[in-house]
Amino acid sequence: MKTYKIDERSRKYRFGAPIETESLVINSMQKMTDNTLKYFKLNRKKNQLQFIYKMSKSDIVLGLGENQRGMNKRGGLYESFCSDDPVHTPDKKSLYGAHNFFILDGAEKFGIFVDYPSKVIFDIGFSQADELNITIEDENLDLYIIEGEGPKEIVEAFLVLLGDSYVPPKWAFGYQQSRWSYPDSKEIERIADSFLQNKIPCDAIYLDIDYMEAYKDFTIDEKRFPEFKEFVEKIKNKGFRLIPIIDAGVKIEDDYIIYEEGKKNDFFCVDEDDTPFVAAVWPGKVHFPDFLNPEARRWFGLKYKLLIDNGIEGFWNDMNEPAIFYTEDSLKKAISMAKDSEDKNLDINSYFNLKDQFSNLINNVEDYKRFYHKIDGKKISHYDVHNLYGHNMTRSAAEGFKEIDPNKRFLLFSRASYIGMGRYGGIWTGDNHSWWQHILLNIKMMPALNMCGFLYIGADTGGFSGDANSQLLIRWSQFSIFTPLFRNHSALGTRSQEPYAFDDESTNIMKKVIELRYSLIPYIYSEYMKAAIKKILYFMPLSFEYKDEMSKRVEDQLLVGDSLMITPIYEENAIGRYVWLPEDMLLCKIKSHQDTRCHVYKKGHAYIDVELEETPMFIRKDKMMILGKPAQNVEKINLDELKIIAFIEDGGSYTYFDDDGSTHSYKDGNYSEILIEIKKKAEEYIVDVENKGNYMVKKIHFEIIDIEGNVIEKTVNLTK
Amino acid sequence: MKTYKIDERSRKYRFGAPIETESLVINSMQKMTDNTLKYFKLNRKKNQLQFIYKMSKSDIVLGLGENQRGMNKRGGLYESFCSDDPVHTPDKKSLYGAHNFFILDGAEKFGIFVDYPSKVIFDIGFSQADELNITIEDENLDLYIIEGEGPKEIVEAFLVLLGDSYVPPKWAFGYQQSRWSYPDSKEIERIADSFLQNKIPCDAIYLDIDYMEAYKDFTIDEKRFPEFKEFVEKIKNKGFRLIPIIDAGVKIEDDYIIYEEGKKNDFFCVDEDDTPFVAAVWPGKVHFPDFLNPEARRWFGLKYKLLIDNGIEGFWNDMNEPAIFYTEDSLKKAISMAKDSEDKNLDINSYFNLKDQFSNLINNVEDYKRFYHKIDGKKISHYDVHNLYGHNMTRSAAEGFKEIDPNKRFLLFSRASYIGMGRYGGIWTGDNHSWWQHILLNIKMMPALNMCGFLYIGADTGGFSGDANSQLLIRWSQFSIFTPLFRNHSALGTRSQEPYAFDDESTNIMKKVIELRYSLIPYIYSEYMKAAIKKILYFMPLSFEYKDEMSKRVEDQLLVGDSLMITPIYEENAIGRYVWLPEDMLLCKIKSHQDTRCHVYKKGHAYIDVELEETPMFIRKDKMMILGKPAQNVEKINLDELKIIAFIEDGGSYTYFDDDGSTHSYKDGNYSEILIEIKKKAEEYIVDVENKGNYMVKKIHFEIIDIEGNVIEKTVNLTK
Repeated sequence: MKTYKIDERSRKYRFGAPIETESLVINSMQKMTDNTLKYFKLNRKKNQLQFIYKMSKSDIVLGLGENQRGMNKRGGLYESFCSDDPVHTPDKKSLYGAHNFFILDGAEKFGIFVDYPSKVIFDIGFSQADELNITIEDENLDLYIIEGEGPKEIVEAFLVLLGDSYVPPKWAFGYQQSRWSYPDSKEIERIADSFLQNKIPCDAIYLDIDYMEAYKDFTIDEKRFPEFKEFVEKIKNKGFRLIPIIDAGVKIEDDYIIYEEGKKNDFFCVDEDDTPFVAAVWPGKVHFPDFLNPEARRWFGLKYKLLIDNGIEGFWNDMNEPAIFYTEDSLKKAISMAKDSEDKNLDINSYFNLKDQFSNLINNVEDYKRFYHKIDGKKISHYDVHNLYGHNMTRSAAEGFKEIDPNKRFLLFSRASYIGMGRYGGIWTGDNHSWWQHILLNIKMMPALNMCGFLYIGADTGGFSGDANSQLLIRWSQFSIFTPLFRNHSALGTRSQEPYAFDDESTNIMKKVIELRYSLIPYIYSEYMKAAIKKILYFMPLSFEYKDEMSKRVEDQLLVGDSLMITPIYEENAIGRYVWLPEDMLLCKIKSHQDTRCHVYKKGHAYIDVELEETPMFIRKDKMMILGKPAQNVEKINLDELKIIAFIEDGGSYTYFDDDGSTHSYKDGNYSEILIEIKKKAEEYIVDVENKGNYMVKKIHFEIIDIEGNVIEKTVNLTK
Repeated sequence: MKTYKIDERSRKYRFGAPIETESLVINSMQKMTDNTLKYFKLNRKKNQLQFIYKMSKSDIVLGLGENQRGMNKRGGLYESFCSDDPVHTPDKKSLYGAHNFFILDGAEKFGIFVDYPSKVIFDIGFSQADELNITIEDENLDLYIIEGEGPKEIVEAFLVLLGDSYVPPKWAFGYQQSRWSYPDSKEIERIADSFLQNKIPCDAIYLDIDYMEAYKDFTIDEKRFPEFKEFVEKIKNKGFRLIPIIDAGVKIEDDYIIYEEGKKNDFFCVDEDDTPFVAAVWPGKVHFPDFLNPEARRWFGLKYKLLIDNGIEGFWNDMNEPAIFYTEDSLKKAISMAKDSEDKNLDINSYFNLKDQFSNLINNVEDYKRFYHKIDGKKISHYDVHNLYGHNMTRSAAEGFKEIDPNKRFLLFSRASYIGMGRYGGIWTGDNHSWWQHILLNIKMMPALNMCGFLYIGADTGGFSGDANSQLLIRWSQFSIFTPLFRNHSALGTRSQEPYAFDDESTNIMKKVIELRYSLIPYIYSEYMKAAIKKILYFMPLSFEYKDEMSKRVEDQLLVGDSLMITPIYEENAIGRYVWLPEDMLLCKIKSHQDTRCHVYKKGHAYIDVELEETPMFIRKDKMMILGKPAQNVEKINLDELKIIAFIEDGGSYTYFDDDGSTHSYKDGNYSEILIEIKKKAEEYIVDVENKGNYMVKKIHFEIIDIEGNVIEKTVNLTK
């Protein structure tokens, strides 16, 4: 083991000679002479490393990104191995992402990142209530330990190592409508027009797999989408972007240009005999581009230009764990077993064997051991670098965009991911269900994903599989208005769940909820951008700001940005919920951006009534929330006048960020800020507004609410 | 439609000429001239009846027995169709039971029982938020509408129609240990000895399918259980009953007596050609006894004697939906499709077709349309009476017991059920998972099952499928100590979850939790017996006793018997929970029967701290809880001295019931009661104890706690 000091907070421990994942961005580090591994007992066996930590009763464990169970991960067994598993029941050990960072907050406080691209097992008090156990079947590994005064400081130190976060265009903070599938241009147009007719804001409509010709990447089915470029333009003129899906597998088909180029240049993953590996996914038989090979990655990334040239400005990368429906070998084996069973009087075990042979065809781990990548000329088993695949597909796209249109921000997010992919794109949390429990899972995942460096995140609102009812969609949306990615997506064969798909009353509520999202964009965008630039969190567990024991235990409330604590409703038929207030706060129940009712709540436990049409949010003490006016889409938002609701005991400040929303110029300091300060002097509130370059906002209306609930209104005109 | 008046509260509406389910016990009723159907709008189509009710905003819907979602069933779509589905995700529309009774509590108040033995669809605000819609694909139906002042009165009126409840022997209120499987006598003995060594109380150990010879009903595998009768005796001498499983399907095997007799007497369900229908389940190919044919039912029921003669006193009836792993036809079709697919370049739809052909073999609804019953000489499609199958298997056993040993109480419960089966046995809630969410589901189901006439109920504590951790087992057990059936059961291949299977600390906690169950048996048994005799509920939602709006909304607290409100912990790592107190109550946090800490809580919302080793329970105002002392098993409980904790403002009374615990003599009035009354007079508490025939209890220690938390202790010696 070698130990390196990265900075005051972070150390790297290298075991053996691991594969470079390039997950972190570390410019320099110093080799240390002190080689003691802190916190963990190391168990070294042949082909195995095991790290053991004895937990105290009060320890909580936060992080691990996209995973099941609580915000506090204690009690669970997790296997970090990107998996296309569409049934997210509470016992699933792996979902689509591999997010090997967590913090322990308790008797000791530290963060750990297990930088290992194949399976990692985290047993966090599952086998033994007080034992945390990390196991890999390898002797080569990079391990990072990050220290800090508290969980927030630890995560912020980790985020520094992750480099600059991906930032989408501003329109990607608008509401987005998806379904598998809106299968042709006629249907897409019908959807766009429905939003316009219902006056429900929306910025993007998605193209799921059926827009392609026979599921071939970078093709358009011309029957269903004739004159695609003109159609993209037409829909854009109506105010909507079209977001096509890109799958990992490339269809094997003669004369299909992507296939031919990939084959010619050896850009595909190969099998043991060095011939391109064949798997079956949506297009039937496919090859997988070797995204770990820089040349192949560049080649694939530049292919996005085929769609960009049609006016496309955003993409979602899917099936990139990679998902495998079957391989020829495994299907052959299953079929031959079926043949052998013919006319036999099967005993029940033989029957289940046969049945399992078919049901285990899909995403069979053994298939991941049958193909290979080329890394620096070396042939590496896919299994050994499995968790880097989706990560590098998304990197491929992001690097492609940089070459295609260097200063333009594209929308990009992925299903599979590894830590570090947050530099290249966002993620959505995959194929969830229309289950109330999945709203809560969504809530719990968000801060964990932020901790792992993913800022642009969201779940399929309303649920992908299964049938939503109107109440579920409304309550879920009332949470999703706070997630950077706010997309409604649902599966083939399920009930329609567009915001207007239910009864009139529900449509009306959904319209107001989505409008509220647009009113909140000044706040959400400002907080997102500050998080990206300053490398801080957008979503936080309460314990990151409040040090009481209760705040460590709350699993269903989140801090959003600098000012808000949210307490979503995630239970069917609920007429309210319990809330922990770690300090006095101002509850605003919002029926529409024009109907905000605010009440002061004292520190402690409370039950709050929340009607179906109300979105509850708490403004923290000495903090403020910014509201704009909704519009049909983000570009149409009029920022002339903003409203600030402030909950002030002593005084507070807020920095409102904005920029062009479409380029990377903010990285060069090309952005505007409005610095707002409210001070209490005697019984007076003094409002100070300093405008640093914002040419949009002309006026800010203040509604200052003091600890007694008194409301003071002020209006400030902005000067440039 | 014909309308009948059953009594002041209940009416029957007959549509067409439905199959008699014999679910209710109605001695007489009067035909009415007024034929208006109350509450519902009737939509009559060819082969379809649809009943529609417009719900008010404040309406809640309770009941439907074994089903997913909330205690309040609004928002859900339910299909009443007994289903062996082992993955109880929130979207499952059918579980094992068909429990077509619910009450609407809101603007109007009524109960409805849809007495129909095939599929019934309940759309309770799923399609339309304010519409309740009941649909059957038939024109023949019995419908019952029950009225009353409130939900409790409605349910009690319904329970009267259900007849006398099943009552198990008293030892069946002890803790019971199960696993699929303890496969041989050696393992069973090891389990028994482990309980004795750890001094953990236990009354029964289960025999899952592996005790049989080749899964043949009423056989014993003599290799694994040599000298079975002696072994049963030996284990009974150690203090444990053995409870074998009985499956619905009878193995097709020459010279197997059950098969031969069934075939000879035409006791099996037949296919279209009148030959016994073949399906495959655990034993491989089986025939299904036609439990709807009274002769076949009697024949099968008397077969239990084969095991009873070996000393067996309890059974669980399983696989009686009936579960079907496959039928020959469907398997042949799947295999032939596989053959046809060989060496073809399958497109992705053909591949999924092939795969689905195999995955849909199990419990395929089409198979239920392929076989027939004989009812009154008529051949009836199984599909049309599907929901009566498990019901009548259990009736078969119960009627058998009555003939075999008329006055003896046997333990009997079933997986599949229909309303009315509560006369013959209990139910367990089937193959759940080791998911925290399934503790909550368990909590929500219990009162709904009670409403449908099932009193002896419980879930697989710790979860059947999946792996439990120690905390889950502890928290689940802290709830299960209140369920009449308290059984720990887990599946093949899962982690062991006996109470001593984890670390020492967990073993110690589990020992105290199970001991607490035994301390509570005086209360639990007393309340169970009173519920059975008086036809009242054992578990109730809060709204049955409290009329405030909050009590209608609480989904995770239950009233248990006359005195208790329970508030289980069902979230991982929780250190407490929120509680709604509809009136002042006394919280007792119990670490062991000797360590009960009680505090008065005022009406309103509260957050209560609950350590892992604490079981919380509230004693309602002017009510009392009885505690005895634990023992290794129920028969060893010493009832000499009881302790009563009473929470008294003005005064309260309690009737303590007991009987021989083993016979049906209680029906003839052969039971004892102790009538306890506590009256407050000035600052004094007067305790009145009247003993009506109890020869066990010598002394009762009273701990009377007043509204201020003052404790008054008294001891009363009992006279006969």
